[in-house]
Amino acid sequence: MSSPTSLMKRLVLGRPFRSDSLGHTLLSKRIALPVFASDPLSSVAYATQEILLILTLGGLAYIHLTPYVGAAVVVLLAVVVLSYRQVVRAYPSGGGSYEVVSKNLGPLAGLVVAAALLVDYVMTVAVSVAAGVDNIISAFPDLNAYRVGINIGFVILLTAMNLRGVRESGRAFAIPTYAFIVGVYLMVGLGLLRALLGHPPVAESAGYGIRAEQVGLTTVALILLVLRAFSSGCTALTGVEAISNGVPAFRKPKALNAARTMAAMGLLAVTMFAGVTVLALIAKTRVVENTCDLVGFHGDCTTEPQRTVIAQLAAAVFGNNSVMFFYIQAATALILVLAANTAYNGFPLLASILAQDRYLPRQLQNRGDRLAYSNGIILLAVVAGGLIYAFDGSVTRLIQLYIMGVFTSFTLCQAGMVRHWNSELRHATTPALRRKINSGRAVNAFGALLTGLVLVVVMITKFTHGAYLVVIAIPVLCALMHAIHRHYASVRDELRLAPDDEATLPSRVHAVVLVSGWNKATQRAILYARATRPHTLTALTVNINDDDTRALHREWEALDIDVPLKVVESPYREITRPVLQYVKRARQRPRDVVCVYIPETVVGRWWENLLHNQSSLRLKARLLFEPDVMVTSVPYQLHTAARRDVTKAEHSPGDVRSGVDRSVRYDRNLD
Amino acid sequence: MSSPTSLMKRLVLGRPFRSDSLGHTLLSKRIALPVFASDPLSSVAYATQEILLILTLGGLAYIHLTPYVGAAVVVLLAVVVLSYRQVVRAYPSGGGSYEVVSKNLGPLAGLVVAAALLVDYVMTVAVSVAAGVDNIISAFPDLNAYRVGINIGFVILLTAMNLRGVRESGRAFAIPTYAFIVGVYLMVGLGLLRALLGHPPVAESAGYGIRAEQVGLTTVALILLVLRAFSSGCTALTGVEAISNGVPAFRKPKALNAARTMAAMGLLAVTMFAGVTVLALIAKTRVVENTCDLVGFHGDCTTEPQRTVIAQLAAAVFGNNSVMFFYIQAATALILVLAANTAYNGFPLLASILAQDRYLPRQLQNRGDRLAYSNGIILLAVVAGGLIYAFDGSVTRLIQLYIMGVFTSFTLCQAGMVRHWNSELRHATTPALRRKINSGRAVNAFGALLTGLVLVVVMITKFTHGAYLVVIAIPVLCALMHAIHRHYASVRDELRLAPDDEATLPSRVHAVVLVSGWNKATQRAILYARATRPHTLTALTVNINDDDTRALHREWEALDIDVPLKVVESPYREITRPVLQYVKRARQRPRDVVCVYIPETVVGRWWENLLHNQSSLRLKARLLFEPDVMVTSVPYQLHTAARRDVTKAEHSPGDVRSGVDRSVRYDRNLD
Repeated sequence: MSSPTSLMKRLVLGRPFRSDSLGHTLLSKRIALPVFASDPLSSVAYATQEILLILTLGGLAYIHLTPYVGAAVVVLLAVVVLSYRQVVRAYPSGGGSYEVVSKNLGPLAGLVVAAALLVDYVMTVAVSVAAGVDNIISAFPDLNAYRVGINIGFVILLTAMNLRGVRESGRAFAIPTYAFIVGVYLMVGLGLLRALLGHPPVAESAGYGIRAEQVGLTTVALILLVLRAFSSGCTALTGVEAISNGVPAFRKPKALNAARTMAAMGLLAVTMFAGVTVLALIAKTRVVENTCDLVGFHGDCTTEPQRTVIAQLAAAVFGNNSVMFFYIQAATALILVLAANTAYNGFPLLASILAQDRYLPRQLQNRGDRLAYSNGIILLAVVAGGLIYAFDGSVTRLIQLYIMGVFTSFTLCQAGMVRHWNSELRHATTPALRRKINSGRAVNAFGALLTGLVLVVVMITKFTHGAYLVVIAIPVLCALMHAIHRHYASVRDELRLAPDDEATLPSRVHAVVLVSGWNKATQRAILYARATRPHTLTALTVNINDDDTRALHREWEALDIDVPLKVVESPYREITRPVLQYVKRARQRPRDVVCVYIPETVVGRWWENLLHNQSSLRLKARLLFEPDVMVTSVPYQLHTAARRDVTKAEHSPGDVRSGVDRSVRYDRNLD
Repeated sequence: MSSPTSLMKRLVLGRPFRSDSLGHTLLSKRIALPVFASDPLSSVAYATQEILLILTLGGLAYIHLTPYVGAAVVVLLAVVVLSYRQVVRAYPSGGGSYEVVSKNLGPLAGLVVAAALLVDYVMTVAVSVAAGVDNIISAFPDLNAYRVGINIGFVILLTAMNLRGVRESGRAFAIPTYAFIVGVYLMVGLGLLRALLGHPPVAESAGYGIRAEQVGLTTVALILLVLRAFSSGCTALTGVEAISNGVPAFRKPKALNAARTMAAMGLLAVTMFAGVTVLALIAKTRVVENTCDLVGFHGDCTTEPQRTVIAQLAAAVFGNNSVMFFYIQAATALILVLAANTAYNGFPLLASILAQDRYLPRQLQNRGDRLAYSNGIILLAVVAGGLIYAFDGSVTRLIQLYIMGVFTSFTLCQAGMVRHWNSELRHATTPALRRKINSGRAVNAFGALLTGLVLVVVMITKFTHGAYLVVIAIPVLCALMHAIHRHYASVRDELRLAPDDEATLPSRVHAVVLVSGWNKATQRAILYARATRPHTLTALTVNINDDDTRALHREWEALDIDVPLKVVESPYREITRPVLQYVKRARQRPRDVVCVYIPETVVGRWWENLLHNQSSLRLKARLLFEPDVMVTSVPYQLHTAARRDVTKAEHSPGDVRSGVDRSVRYDRNLD
């Protein structure tokens, strides 16, 4: 706990503690709320700001429309939360939108949702990190010059932590999330109180005018502007579906507890978003994308950015650079980084489910395996980091790409739920049940309609601002996953055994032991090969250097080893080709099988592997292409290899939210 | 021969033709000369220019010293050629400086030479490519804006060609090399003739003054300046040792033919370098590093570079933009690219020798294997490309790093030869032989002294101009190679069998076949496992998905397979850990051995590998750490795998100069 990185970890994730103290890793509602709500609540930090930004494109003339736009977002948020409460109850297995859509609307629609969710996770990382850095810069304006660098630094930090498999804990989420909730409520409460008392807080930007980019708007243009502001405000809804993916991590009754947590989260999100929006209007907060559009801005608009709305409000309510101001900024930055971290957990989990359904490479399936995880994490980090770099870490520009994916999955999920209720209805017997199903269906149908409408609005108003990238990415991802699925199907067909396929035992096994020198590894390989009692047993060496080969031959005869040593020539010092040619000829009859034994020296340090076994790796890879050949590695462990305990438990990120406890051993035999 | 790349290849390397038409790939002197001389002769293209550049740092006042500096270079060149003729005769095996120094001065000095040569190869690529591009830009000045890009492009082109294993041919070297020789002789001859006739050619820069960077030089400063100019001129010597590495590729009598070719090459290098230098002085060529130092330069000195000395002379002699001007520029650029290409051949060859001596990872040893080659090629390309990028593709700045390595190996090699003669002398019996040895020793001793002196001069005059990088790089490389050597030695010790080590045959073999489903690959693995007649035979499956496992179990029972199917649990969908735990317990007695059979689906296309066998790869890697466990891969080849013929011959770059003919098959058994 002394190095700077571990200190950083502690700051970000809190002190790690044993998962068994969490009641067999299942989450109480009090802990589940912060674990799953950091993502949806964190969007409070930027949703209001994005609405104001878009509306003021038309100058200050239309800023009075903010409450209506905000109200529409709140209504939408409430509807989506209600809709997802149905999902949690109907599909408590944690498959979320992908499961709902695949089961009810077919695999193709499921693929679309999967692609949308993958895009979403990437955008969650990019937007949350960018917004977090924005709030850090609002507290320490001098850091603005290093904006992109700090962004990339956070992505690297998150990636490293997740690659190392930092053990998660509920408390690590609880403290920053509750700190953020308490901070925002305090700020909104105190601000409103002061307004009621006749001394409303005044934002630092209250006095500025705004140079309008769009003036003299036609009715159509105004409607489009308002819809665009609404689309941007919809970022408040991102992450709402998180709980539907994590139902198995709840204590029993799981579905009920999850639904209740969902309701609490919805209530928090609605009140916090509404509170911040109202306070921003009271404080006359002015916020623009390009600082130079501010009339009366005091500094150099080309280099100084505006502070975030949260920072402006905190400064107005608590006083600039007061303790509480820094508290709010720290809590905001922290919850945003936590939100980004949830994507690091969600992405590999979804990839694992997709791999199980054979839409992604099978190696992503085994979540327990660290490597499966790593590929997903690195992919996520590279794409998110690339986007941040390409868009200069600008939240406003990144957010244009965010909402498309979210609403695609919302809409399809709710539509899938309608189908689900329809089929439930067919089997429902009692009138009470039918009533319940009908009301559920009504909620989801309304949700599907509304989110579908929003999806169309988002697509229209954001297409040219960057959303077209998502419109391209989703079909490309779908096509890729479809192609992978087809490949696996064709391999399965080729491997399928027909009922009349005869099983013929190989008649003879010829063992060939590869020898490069006489040592313990070679001796072991010959002993092991002999233990399998092959029909013939030969030691084979490749003559790369005449002197070495002659020395080996002499040693072989001196020690009187009772296995014949064959030498194949290799004038150009290659190994693979001569061995392959020998092995081809070693099979004398059609039903013969050749087993090639390769002694391997096993070392423990990663760099030692660069110095060993590279040619045997290649040889093994080539031998696999040879019909009727088995390849056996006979390892000899050097002392450095003994240090590694390969069976020790590993912890994967996301364990907490999937209810995993890796301290168990598993031994069960079915027969 | 229609695609742009094949056309490019043809332009660069000439039409490929079968190596057997070259008389079993051994080289006649007529072909050997261009194969080995492209590197040393190509330095004619920049050596004169570098002398002029340095001398004119003191303005035009010291340009009259050029002939003396040039003469010193010519003398040095002659001495080095004579010295290396001795090397070729004494060490006809092609080991070159590294072999001479290792054998005579011990392994540590050998390591220093090896490191110096590795650095040298990198610099050959960087300097030759940069100089080639300079000459292209001299012909097409508009390309100047893309200088670094064109440089990197050539590095990538060379890398790609060598990675693909383009088949070399002597003629591919012969045409550009002879074209360059003829062109330079024509130019020098015609130029001198015109001077004799009283109409000397006048360079375009003849009228310019030069703004001196160093004025009013003290005697010491003047001496340093002249020595620095001499050091730069020594670039004319780079590549002279090439023939000493390629003696085995010559026709018999190899050593004699090689020595004669060396003499011819020396004569060409001396006359061409002297001719270009004299002509440059006659034409009053002015050349500076920074164009803005030219008084009277007609263009914008911040963006327009000066043309190379070769280009200025060609324009002065043949007329600017005449056919012959472009001919000279094309031949110069081409031979420089060829010179860079020789480093692509030499680097992996040296790496292979170092690997054989256990100073570099063993996988670099097997030159025949394409992969061994690729690592070396990519490493070379990345470092050379990085240097070009870091030094903006400036020949003058890159050349500061070049000569240190060359003269380190020259000096040590000649010193080694003196030692060699000393020991020869001890066994020499006849007075004639003693005389011969004595004269050889005198040549090499003088060579060692002179090159050693130059090395000191180079180090002093160039240290702060970039040579310090080489002074750092060589010891670092040495230390790295030494550490690798030590590692291999310690492994060999650990593996060494003591005479009293008992060989105990394992008492029982337990075969465990990993099963993920019932298909042809599984069936084959079970059949093969049974063919080895193990004491126990078990099928093992990991329960990742309850439904799948139950289905497998039912199928197993329905088909009445007579191998028991064991199921191990894996609640977190990992494979490696449960299998490892099972395997640990399967060994019941101390002398038991477990053999794990893994069915592998073998696919032919590279991307298919991303979709298959990844978890078995990891599992195999982990199982190797388990004592008393063998791991057997049982491949099942899908139809896409059958397309690949893995035994077909591959051609490696550098085959021509090492006398390799890959069309042979090799079958020889010692017993």
